[in-house]
Amino acid sequence: MSDTPPNPDQPEPDQPNLDQRVFDEYCMRLALQLAQQGQGHVEPNPMVGCVLARDGQIIGQGYHESFGGPHAEVQALRSLTDSATANSCTAYVTLEPCCHHGKTPPCVDALINAGVRRVVVAMDDPFPKVSGGGLERLRQAGVEVHLGLLRADAAELNAPYLKRIRSGIPWVIAKWAMTMDGRIATVSGQSQWITGETARRSVHQLRARVDAILTGMGTVESDDPTLTARLSNTDNDGTSIEPSRVATRVVFCRHRLPDLKSKLMSTIDQAPVLLIVSDTIDESHLASLTHAGAAVFRCQNSDPSQMIHAGLTHLGKQSMTNVMLECGSTMMGSFLCPENLVDECHIYLGNTLFGGATALGPIGGNGFKMLAQAPRFRLVETTQMDNDLRIIYRSSTPPTG
Amino acid sequence: MSDTPPNPDQPEPDQPNLDQRVFDEYCMRLALQLAQQGQGHVEPNPMVGCVLARDGQIIGQGYHESFGGPHAEVQALRSLTDSATANSCTAYVTLEPCCHHGKTPPCVDALINAGVRRVVVAMDDPFPKVSGGGLERLRQAGVEVHLGLLRADAAELNAPYLKRIRSGIPWVIAKWAMTMDGRIATVSGQSQWITGETARRSVHQLRARVDAILTGMGTVESDDPTLTARLSNTDNDGTSIEPSRVATRVVFCRHRLPDLKSKLMSTIDQAPVLLIVSDTIDESHLASLTHAGAAVFRCQNSDPSQMIHAGLTHLGKQSMTNVMLECGSTMMGSFLCPENLVDECHIYLGNTLFGGATALGPIGGNGFKMLAQAPRFRLVETTQMDNDLRIIYRSSTPPTG
Repeated sequence: MSDTPPNPDQPEPDQPNLDQRVFDEYCMRLALQLAQQGQGHVEPNPMVGCVLARDGQIIGQGYHESFGGPHAEVQALRSLTDSATANSCTAYVTLEPCCHHGKTPPCVDALINAGVRRVVVAMDDPFPKVSGGGLERLRQAGVEVHLGLLRADAAELNAPYLKRIRSGIPWVIAKWAMTMDGRIATVSGQSQWITGETARRSVHQLRARVDAILTGMGTVESDDPTLTARLSNTDNDGTSIEPSRVATRVVFCRHRLPDLKSKLMSTIDQAPVLLIVSDTIDESHLASLTHAGAAVFRCQNSDPSQMIHAGLTHLGKQSMTNVMLECGSTMMGSFLCPENLVDECHIYLGNTLFGGATALGPIGGNGFKMLAQAPRFRLVETTQMDNDLRIIYRSSTPPTG
Repeated sequence: MSDTPPNPDQPEPDQPNLDQRVFDEYCMRLALQLAQQGQGHVEPNPMVGCVLARDGQIIGQGYHESFGGPHAEVQALRSLTDSATANSCTAYVTLEPCCHHGKTPPCVDALINAGVRRVVVAMDDPFPKVSGGGLERLRQAGVEVHLGLLRADAAELNAPYLKRIRSGIPWVIAKWAMTMDGRIATVSGQSQWITGETARRSVHQLRARVDAILTGMGTVESDDPTLTARLSNTDNDGTSIEPSRVATRVVFCRHRLPDLKSKLMSTIDQAPVLLIVSDTIDESHLASLTHAGAAVFRCQNSDPSQMIHAGLTHLGKQSMTNVMLECGSTMMGSFLCPENLVDECHIYLGNTLFGGATALGPIGGNGFKMLAQAPRFRLVETTQMDNDLRIIYRSSTPPTG
């Protein structure tokens, strides 16, 4: 785990005597922390933060706040009280500045025009239209470029973006609540609630920042879930908090389809529904659902693993970066085995014991026979929520910068 | 969770301006922390710490270090460079001082003879030979007595002792290692290792401080475990560390008995073995085991719950305070359901996912049908051990002082 970054709300102390390397790292950590604030708002763009400094003093800062809005570098330049102060300063950017006209003009031009003398970049952007071109343009304009400061932290921050750009597949977050003895329901199937209110609110916050919530027909039929982010309880002054984005509810349908009267379908005005259907589903049965507004993606077969692959690829093509699994034991098992497709786990550990040899665990299916086949994860974060714990893991191979 | 107590290795600062109440609490927290150092060494006695102070300065401290050795009050008095300085001081004691001749003379006499003016006690001792008598003797001698400062913390510290004194039953610690998805083995039964070395070392440290390790014949037959505390790996300079005590290996034998060649029986010179046998076990089959040194406790029947009750009562009568469950899913299930006999859980959460609908969870048996029947626990401690977590819970009703 990385060091605690500085608090951006704190006034910056004078740091005239700080060694340059230490100061560079300090500024980049701040830029990374700023970048993080765009989470849920900027996707499918990466999160980016920028800090401007001169003579050992931070003079400006900014981050990419929302998709379609100005990039971090432009925000940082705008934060200057006098634009002339940018002249000869150093810019710390968590990702290679863009060199193409996208939703906004190229950031490299903004930095060059402002007179920035030195640019410290955590990592290059694998996005094909950038991919080294931004750094090249800066060097050509005579700007001193340093690449690779806190590269691992920057790659960790944007791991979901990097995975999608490189593989076309979204970052898969598996979420489940279980008891201290690893059960998601009692032997008779009771499951509400394993965790307390704080933990359940945190699930809604996670739903509010992802692009899709994936489930299966088993869960739709047994729980009739809504799978929307309901945040109105999280505010302190009674005002309703808006989610960063509205996740599409994605249902894998191998043999059956959701009922029109299901909560999922009857709340389609609040959040889209996408049905990923196997080849065994008859076209005629889909008509009423599509008429009600559901989108459909049809797979070539009904094999769970192949449907998952095809479905994830489809979601990647829709520029979805983060998708979240909220499904039953069996579907979870198909995401894990034979090939692990889970990049991140959010485990909510409740403070109770159910026991029972037949009580369901979170991941069913075939499972791994050999211990050596089972994937290992990195423990990333542990947070106490009343008497519950939220434990976050990521796949054990850290993303490369 | 309680506030962090002061570090006893730190020199005491002058505290002339501290409010008396704050200073009292400060001294009692230090006494509680001192007491804790006796864990594993003093049982079946309670852990007790004592701090002596005068004029806002700590002048002495001590704790009950080992069973049969001097009590905390005597240790604190001995720590004074000049015994005359005890005159008119205040003594902070985490448990009512004893008033009877046990292995050592009464502590109340030591305090009175030293001239202690005021005694602050966290909680009274329910031990029948003390139980208020110590406080009464102090008052009769003209000593000012305050009872109840940090009572809850003191009761939490000695919860195992309090339970045994009040109910005759030892404190039951259930320990298991499981994967992130709550499995103790793969679908084919592989289980070594779910957690890493640091976590496994910590299990040996736990074994080294309990009175008994309880298991079942299923585990003996499938794993052939030794169940001894092997601490030689935990030292830094190559010297072997001795366990605080040697736990008796207790095996519940409903239908079958351990083989003489089992690791358990062949290491009986290192740690005792006690067999808790049902009425179905033939006396003649026990002869070779008792001859090899195993102790036997015979139950009146072969019902798992009744055998557990009878066994725990027997262990309580042997003055065992802490016992630890290291058993399979089925026996664990009998400790949980229908009546929860587990006071504390040490869960080692490994960083892997096994999956598999038929992979074993830590607690099998019948389990609770209704969620409302399932016991709730208090989250007491979370410790990261490499990529593993050790999570400690205690039964949700805090022990009363």
